[in-house]
Amino acid sequence: MSIATEVRQLGRHDGASVTVRGWVQTTRTHGKVAFVVVRDGTGIVQCVVVQKQVPPAAWELCGALTQESSVAVTGSVRADARAPGGYELAVQDLVLIGPSAEYPIQPKEHGVDFLLDNRHLWLRSSQQRAIMRVRNEVEQAIHDFFYQREFVRIDTPILTAAIGEGGAGLFEVDYFDERAYLTQTGQLYAEAAAAALGKVYCFGPTFRAEKSKTRRHLTEFWMVEPEVAWNDSADNMRLQEDFVSYIVERALARCRDELAILERDTAPLERVAPPFPRIEYAEAIRVLQARGHEIEWGADLGAPDETVLASDYDRPLFVMNYPREAKAFYMKENPADPRTVLCDDLLAPEGYGEIIGGSQREDDYDRLLRRIRAENLPEAAYGWYLDLRRYGTFPHSGFGLGVERTVAWITGRPHIRELIPFPRMLTRIYP
Amino acid sequence: MSIATEVRQLGRHDGASVTVRGWVQTTRTHGKVAFVVVRDGTGIVQCVVVQKQVPPAAWELCGALTQESSVAVTGSVRADARAPGGYELAVQDLVLIGPSAEYPIQPKEHGVDFLLDNRHLWLRSSQQRAIMRVRNEVEQAIHDFFYQREFVRIDTPILTAAIGEGGAGLFEVDYFDERAYLTQTGQLYAEAAAAALGKVYCFGPTFRAEKSKTRRHLTEFWMVEPEVAWNDSADNMRLQEDFVSYIVERALARCRDELAILERDTAPLERVAPPFPRIEYAEAIRVLQARGHEIEWGADLGAPDETVLASDYDRPLFVMNYPREAKAFYMKENPADPRTVLCDDLLAPEGYGEIIGGSQREDDYDRLLRRIRAENLPEAAYGWYLDLRRYGTFPHSGFGLGVERTVAWITGRPHIRELIPFPRMLTRIYP
Repeated sequence: MSIATEVRQLGRHDGASVTVRGWVQTTRTHGKVAFVVVRDGTGIVQCVVVQKQVPPAAWELCGALTQESSVAVTGSVRADARAPGGYELAVQDLVLIGPSAEYPIQPKEHGVDFLLDNRHLWLRSSQQRAIMRVRNEVEQAIHDFFYQREFVRIDTPILTAAIGEGGAGLFEVDYFDERAYLTQTGQLYAEAAAAALGKVYCFGPTFRAEKSKTRRHLTEFWMVEPEVAWNDSADNMRLQEDFVSYIVERALARCRDELAILERDTAPLERVAPPFPRIEYAEAIRVLQARGHEIEWGADLGAPDETVLASDYDRPLFVMNYPREAKAFYMKENPADPRTVLCDDLLAPEGYGEIIGGSQREDDYDRLLRRIRAENLPEAAYGWYLDLRRYGTFPHSGFGLGVERTVAWITGRPHIRELIPFPRMLTRIYP
Repeated sequence: MSIATEVRQLGRHDGASVTVRGWVQTTRTHGKVAFVVVRDGTGIVQCVVVQKQVPPAAWELCGALTQESSVAVTGSVRADARAPGGYELAVQDLVLIGPSAEYPIQPKEHGVDFLLDNRHLWLRSSQQRAIMRVRNEVEQAIHDFFYQREFVRIDTPILTAAIGEGGAGLFEVDYFDERAYLTQTGQLYAEAAAAALGKVYCFGPTFRAEKSKTRRHLTEFWMVEPEVAWNDSADNMRLQEDFVSYIVERALARCRDELAILERDTAPLERVAPPFPRIEYAEAIRVLQARGHEIEWGADLGAPDETVLASDYDRPLFVMNYPREAKAFYMKENPADPRTVLCDDLLAPEGYGEIIGGSQREDDYDRLLRRIRAENLPEAAYGWYLDLRRYGTFPHSGFGLGVERTVAWITGRPHIRELIPFPRMLTRIYP
């Protein structure tokens, strides 16, 4: 007789008798009335149990329910402006599906290591659920942005033969009788696809075997990397500001409730719109030196440098054209100053740091080969990559946006370990 | 003076002078007129060069152009019903960007090993480009389907501590001082997220270190795996038929040109609509035995078995409720016949075989623990997975659809190595 439904759909059944299945968040009893708050994944609903209106077994169960027990609640839907979602259930029956004795995560402060050890359960808490919904919106926005602009998604390989950015650590894999490595970037493969399909992007997990334990590093993280034939570095930055603005706009438009749960002040996000300010690396160094930072021309910027630079602006900041030595081998030499390369880092405001690294790619065969040799990269592994400059080379540019860093900024969370469902770090591979 | 544009946009510039940049596919000269076909990734356009209408250098270049040279062509756009895309360029100037001497892939038959060695260039050929566009459409359709139904995407980890399906081979990774393994499935993690968010899915690469060299195996392949709280096995199959029908419909609606390039007979695809036929495993065995297959109750179905079963139907076929021994440890015991589990395989028609494996999950703690022990799985690694049955267990179901196998079926390609940009196989990790 009752209709099985989701909490999110209760409004469609106002006055009707429905059954909702979910997990008990809290219970509270006042004499002969009990209030059970149930979460079913689509929303939370308060269930009002009046002793004389339910079978004795249901009333008894009410007093014994523990956090995260799973239940089926049957009741009539009634509008209540004070209720989350605008509806509550006047309970007719309540049945236990699965008990939950001594649930590890209690409504109190836990240490983060304990929470990470119980990540499979921690995901059930309201802030973590809100974060996952924002991440979902950001990822769909990423796909929609490129789909609408007729990019072709290319799934680049995870297992590779020693090809990547160079520098940072590679994870090694036993690949039958060979050694393989987990990818650090899909970019090089995306470049090959750009020569076939013009505008492409990859979206997937990437890996860095770095022994760093900062709040901005994971060993496994997700990146989106568009690559566009015929785009120069200036085109590339225009694409970046359009892209980032679109993502932020989508999150603001469709994740209001989640950002409220996370107590995110959205005013700074409302200001994110093109054009973003642009400064040259050389200017960045002058600014930093004037503020007393001990940094010399030639060094890469550190996180504290980025925070100071970005704090002068109310939207993301491009820092352009870094010294060649500070950047990856594949970036194109800057004709205006050959000590530098045509590249950009995009720094999020409010201290969230770099969310994008982008560049025009070196399209000259000889220059690229020299760079590969200068960096002592395994030349044989880069043979196919050099082919892209041998057969109809073409100006092209692209960038990589870190998903977790972007969601950290949008949700206002300082540590990126919370922005991915199951973080992988130096000492964490479980659960 | 000329407008830089993409081939796909030529129709917007009818009569105007534009510049297109791309790669030379073919050239042909008739006296004082030459025809250069250029691909820019968004489309292909025929460029008509009349000697007296272009600078001498451009005419000279015309005769010297080789396959896959990159060029910038300036010309006026004119409608031509016979041209692909409906427009051609009356050339005013032609400039070489990058030469291409002795391009390895010629317009003739090459062996597949040679083509795979040159996968970074093979992607430029018209059939491979069409395949990648269909794959792109299928992937966007996957995301749109779940987004519209308010599923939350969950990116499950690639690096795991020995947890998975059991059975098939795991790739080992040196993870600092520990051993880690590349994921075989995101399902177990998706189950944890389903208890938090109700309806979730993961989409990403998965790995099998199997030494099989069949046309249906890759060591690295992409899967989409939805998981839904409160769904039973029958709900699960309804979701599958809706999902598969939606994907096929999107490909038919939006990839007409690509399917034509691939010479795919689309009539069988037009018939794909719910409901799909369903047969029990036991019935499948009877059918196969009646056809002379040497198969006994208890064995998993092989590819030839699947082909024969599917050939009786004009749309995908569900085979349900396999013997426990033939399937993974996490599937729920079938109350109607405890020798079997509540599961389904979805077999594509026309001999394309299994594209989905799905099941209701075992939600009883004790039964699940017995299964983990019976299969000698590392119990410690499954501790968090057992927790999902300890704290508010819940009926739930889900499935995994293989992206490459699905695109193989839709595009009508027999070997899945062509359906992924850079295939990884037993002896192939390059390029």
